[in-house]
Amino acid sequence: MKTGTVIGRIVASKRLPELPPGALLEVQLDYPKDVVVCYDPMGCGIGERVMITIGAPAAWWFAPAHPRVVADALIIASLDNYDTPTPMR
Amino acid sequence: MKTGTVIGRIVASKRLPELPPGALLEVQLDYPKDVVVCYDPMGCGIGERVMITIGAPAAWWFAPAHPRVVADALIIASLDNYDTPTPMR
Amino acid sequence: MKTGTVIGRIVASKRLPELPPGALLEVQLDYPKDVVVCYDPMGCGIGERVMITIGAPAAWWFAPAHPRVVADALIIASLDNYDTPTPMR
Amino acid sequence: MKTGTVIGRIVASKRLPELPPGALLEVQLDYPKDVVVCYDPMGCGIGERVMITIGAPAAWWFAPAHPRVVADALIIASLDNYDTPTPMR
Amino acid sequence: MKTGTVIGRIVASKRLPELPPGALLEVQLDYPKDVVVCYDPMGCGIGERVMITIGAPAAWWFAPAHPRVVADALIIASLDNYDTPTPMR
Repeated sequence: MKTGTVIGRIVASKRLPELPPGALLEVQLDYPKDVVVCYDPMGCGIGERVMITIGAPAAWWFAPAHPRVVADALIIASLDNYDTPTPMR
Repeated sequence: MKTGTVIGRIVASKRLPELPPGALLEVQLDYPKDVVVCYDPMGCGIGERVMITIGAPAAWWFAPAHPRVVADALIIASLDNYDTPTPMR
Repeated sequence: MKTGTVIGRIVASKRLPELPPGALLEVQLDYPKDVVVCYDPMGCGIGERVMITIGAPAAWWFAPAHPRVVADALIIASLDNYDTPTPMR
Repeated sequence: MKTGTVIGRIVASKRLPELPPGALLEVQLDYPKDVVVCYDPMGCGIGERVMITIGAPAAWWFAPAHPRVVADALIIASLDNYDTPTPMR
Repeated sequence: MKTGTVIGRIVASKRLPELPPGALLEVQLDYPKDVVVCYDPMGCGIGERVMITIGAPAAWWFAPAHPRVVADALIIASLDNYDTPTPMR
C-alpha cells in the first residue's frame, strides 16, 4: 500500500460503462513522487491524507459484483494523527 | 488509473491474432513522464486528454470473450474541463 | 521480493472493512529508495530488517478467508545476520 | 503495451522446463529507458521495431496449454511505417 | 523477464510458513539498476548471470502445490556465453 494526499478530482462524463460510478480522486504519493487516480468509496476531500492500494487487488474489491471493472487503484483508509509522511532515512 | 494525453497512433499489420482489432493509441502520462500504448474502445483523437488503466484489470475487460487477449492498457474515459494536469505540490 | 527496514507505523481508524485488522508498517526499501506500507503478520518493530512481497501474491496469502482483501504488500520474513543491505556493484 | 527495438538474443541452455522453448529477445523500450527480455512467437530480428505486453497478460497467452509458464513479457506485434519513437512533448 | 547477476544470499530463519524452503538470492538487475530477492530452484551461485521472472507469473509456478505462496520473483535460467549485459544504444 502507499500513503499520499488527495490533490484533485477527475470529471469524466464520457467513460466506459465498466468504470463504476463514484468519485475519482487524484492522490499524490509520498514515495515515489507520482500521482495516481483512485476510486474513492470513503468520501475523502482535497488535502486529506489517505492510504491506497494499486493493481489487481484494487480490482478484486469490485469483482464479485463487477468482474470486468476497469479500476486499478482504490482509497482504503483515511489516516489519523499523521500530518506529514515519515521521512526516509 | 493514470491521466495523460494521446500523442500518436500505432500501425501494426503483423500482429498476434490475440491482439484485438481496434485502435492502439500512444498516451503520454502526466505522472510519471512515460508513454504507454493503450487499446482505445472510445474513438479518441490526437491531443485528447484521457484516463487509462494499466495491467491485469485492462486484460480482464476483454476476458469473457477473449481470455488470451494480450492487451495490458486501456483507455477508460475522456476527460472534461480538464485542460492541464493538476500540478504536484 | 524486496529487503528493507521498518521505519514507521500507520494509524488509520477510518478504513474499509476489507482491510484486515493488524499492524500496518512503513518499510523503506533498500533498492530502489521507496517506502511501502506492508501488512505485518509477524510482530516486527521499528528498525527491524525485513523481506516483503508486493502485488497480487501478497493478496493471495489472505485470499482463502478474505477474497476481497485490499492489501497489496506483506512482510514475509525477518532477516538474520544482515545488518546492512548488500551494496550494488 | 510498450514499443521498443530488438537489441539482442538470450542463450540459456540451463533453464526451468516451464520456460517455453522458443526465442527470447532483448527489447530496449522507447519509454522509459529499460531493457526487457521477451518471448518472441513472431520470428523478429535484431533492429526490428516491436510492440510488447508485460506482466500477467503475457503469461495468460500461454495459460491454456502451460498454466505454470514462467514468461512475463511477450512480443505481440511488429511495427510498420514507424521508424522512430513518437517524441514526448 | 530480466537479466542480472547474483550478488548475495538472504538468511531468514524467522519467516512465514508460506515462504517455500529453498535458496533466496539477491539478483542485481542489468536494467534498471535495482536488486530483487529471487527464489532459486536451480542452485545458482554468487556471480552467476541469470534470467528471472517477477510478479504473478513467479507465484503461479508454485501454485498447484502452494496456492498461498508468498514468492514474487524466481530465477528461471542461467545464461551461457553472456558475460556482460547488452549495452543500451
